[in-house]
Amino acid sequence: MFVELITTGSELLLGATLNTHQQWLGRQLAELGMPVSRQLTVPDSGTAIAEAVADALQRADLIITTGGLGPTSDDRTRDEIARLLGLQMTEDPDVLKQIEIVFKRRNHPLPPNFKSIASIQAQVPAGAIVLKNEHGSAPGLSLEIPRTTVGQIPRQLIMLPGPPRELQPIFTEHVIPLLKSKFSASGSFVSTTFHTIGIGESRVEAAIRPHLVELEARGLEIGYCARTGEVDVRLSAQGPAAMELVKEAAQRVRRLMGKYTYSEDRRILEEVVLGLLREQGKKLVTAESCTGGLLAHCLTNVAGASDMFVGGLVTYSNELKQSLLGVRADTLAAHGAVSEETAREMALGALARYGADYALAITGIAGPTGGSAEKPVGTVFIALADRAGVEVERNQNPFDRETFKFITVRQSLEKLRRRLLSSPGDGQQKSPQV
Amino acid sequence: MFVELITTGSELLLGATLNTHQQWLGRQLAELGMPVSRQLTVPDSGTAIAEAVADALQRADLIITTGGLGPTSDDRTRDEIARLLGLQMTEDPDVLKQIEIVFKRRNHPLPPNFKSIASIQAQVPAGAIVLKNEHGSAPGLSLEIPRTTVGQIPRQLIMLPGPPRELQPIFTEHVIPLLKSKFSASGSFVSTTFHTIGIGESRVEAAIRPHLVELEARGLEIGYCARTGEVDVRLSAQGPAAMELVKEAAQRVRRLMGKYTYSEDRRILEEVVLGLLREQGKKLVTAESCTGGLLAHCLTNVAGASDMFVGGLVTYSNELKQSLLGVRADTLAAHGAVSEETAREMALGALARYGADYALAITGIAGPTGGSAEKPVGTVFIALADRAGVEVERNQNPFDRETFKFITVRQSLEKLRRRLLSSPGDGQQKSPQV
Repeated sequence: MFVELITTGSELLLGATLNTHQQWLGRQLAELGMPVSRQLTVPDSGTAIAEAVADALQRADLIITTGGLGPTSDDRTRDEIARLLGLQMTEDPDVLKQIEIVFKRRNHPLPPNFKSIASIQAQVPAGAIVLKNEHGSAPGLSLEIPRTTVGQIPRQLIMLPGPPRELQPIFTEHVIPLLKSKFSASGSFVSTTFHTIGIGESRVEAAIRPHLVELEARGLEIGYCARTGEVDVRLSAQGPAAMELVKEAAQRVRRLMGKYTYSEDRRILEEVVLGLLREQGKKLVTAESCTGGLLAHCLTNVAGASDMFVGGLVTYSNELKQSLLGVRADTLAAHGAVSEETAREMALGALARYGADYALAITGIAGPTGGSAEKPVGTVFIALADRAGVEVERNQNPFDRETFKFITVRQSLEKLRRRLLSSPGDGQQKSPQV
Repeated sequence: MFVELITTGSELLLGATLNTHQQWLGRQLAELGMPVSRQLTVPDSGTAIAEAVADALQRADLIITTGGLGPTSDDRTRDEIARLLGLQMTEDPDVLKQIEIVFKRRNHPLPPNFKSIASIQAQVPAGAIVLKNEHGSAPGLSLEIPRTTVGQIPRQLIMLPGPPRELQPIFTEHVIPLLKSKFSASGSFVSTTFHTIGIGESRVEAAIRPHLVELEARGLEIGYCARTGEVDVRLSAQGPAAMELVKEAAQRVRRLMGKYTYSEDRRILEEVVLGLLREQGKKLVTAESCTGGLLAHCLTNVAGASDMFVGGLVTYSNELKQSLLGVRADTLAAHGAVSEETAREMALGALARYGADYALAITGIAGPTGGSAEKPVGTVFIALADRAGVEVERNQNPFDRETFKFITVRQSLEKLRRRLLSSPGDGQQKSPQV
């Protein structure tokens, strides 16, 4: 199956905004077992969109466009595609009603040009399925484009609005069921993804592959996707036995990967950690030096974090490490700010002072300068303290400054996740069978 | 001029990594006056790269590829392109030497397979210019591809390695001079970009356009690029009078935009703010509630930030606002955690306690829940304190959680930048003429 993603917008080509749609839709489609084969960005002006779609129709089974569905003059995607395919546009009364609902929910008076905006936005190409937009005025649209050969599954062309908070719910609520129904003859495409951390791609493969051989022979597909410090494992199958195959494979992978798996749904690591804290009724405080607030930022990106996260201290200077965390001057003098001893005192100080059950502390050398032979750039100490004591790990993350911060934060979150999983009194963690 | 960017890598199509090359190169090329016309992502396996390049050669004057220059079996860009163009490969002794230098500088023993890696990496297609890589083993490569019509400027095909810390220096040091020499007949393409904040795109245009009319008639080109809360204005010209035209236009824009311009080079806002603090020998402390550490994170992304940034407090809970910042229980009870009064006390408390000259404090409602009629989601108070006193502004940033945090941090940095620009004793800021 050839999937082509066409993102539109001059702001993408000029580098004004990051192409986050490419990443978000890329992941969603990979998890559906329909990975993107080709991605293209074209300007939102002129005929580039129609040319790109015409070209994509030569090879693609599924085409998804983003952007260009709004009411202004540079929103041309829908009109250009209708023109290309020779489709008449008509006003859809249901879309018109939904636009009024969305505008009224915003609690503002309707804008003076509301009628003209609404009547533009309610135009739908003949034969299109409308994908309801709960968060904006431009609905998504889906078109089935027949093939010349009789009996082949028709191509699908799906248009989505540009704003992420509109695109993402439309995709999740409407596009995923549509794709499942259109592209699995028996409606039986099944897929599940394991998100793992702390183990490399080749080790993941070596650990699980031998145990899945006969399931592969029966049609199981295994996909690996390595991200910075993490590996996703996708299990998928199609046909009448799909559910049973994926279920059996998932059971084996769950057992084999053990605690390396942090999520089997789409939750990211910080959501999982905050979820465990919530379940256990525990609170967290953070004390960061070299990661400079990124750990706190990641945690507070999750809505509701304030129930479990009391706060964080970014103690960049030695003075703040002493006054806010109670790190001793002797310790700093004898071992340095980047040391196991300082990390330990940071975590214990934060735990003692700020009313939390767990304290994570990080101190290291982000670079580009500041390293030594004994402690080169990339050296980092991560300490985790709770009522039972404190544990420090030393890692070497020899990357550029931003990647260093990112990886170090992942390692800290993972350290806390492992601790939260090991039930109190259990004495030790179960080893994953890898 | 048609510029096509081809990014390669399955990790981009699967959504494992964000396509940051698209943004970084997009901005660089726009500032050079050679904006990207089309961007494509293809897998790093099979023949997709060669097909994409062959297709791009039909229309592009400049093609840039990223990725696929490493020594492993899925690094196929260079070989596929050489095959497409019928170019022989030969080992380049200078490249071989440079690879040894890079490996030895890493202070590690050479890997056992060093000789085989080096001899793969040192293969250069006939006629290619080598773009030296100081940070990795894969050099960039530039090829001139003649046209069938005599006298036309030949097309350029530039291959860059995937890792950002290798790609970016090669582009800055080698590709920019190469492009300037190849694509401006008289070597006289001139461009400068103003980065502005706190004013919308249409107001920027209305403010400067009338004053540049006769320069436009003489060949000046003006480009606007709106980002979240910021607008870039690019002035460019070509030909013998280019330098004079851009210089004259820049003088006018500088005067017209006044303090809305935060940089005329490529420095980002946090670099500018930290640079002003450094010049003035001042130190900063931050106290964040709703932005959850993002302000500290942005500041500490800049190398050397520790000279000016003493640290930050992420006081999510009311308890921490009281114990760490001295916010009074009465204030919290009477006005709430999200209020002008609390913001003021947060800033004054941070200033009094943590040895800084400036304190920035932020408290607001990031959402999605927690709003009220009086203080809806998106309400935020930003306080800036120094020895002379404290000033609080109230903003309404009605966006999703992450955008809210991002915009609020920009507004805070901008507030501090304005304060640092108004010289002490000056009494008031000069108003920009907008």
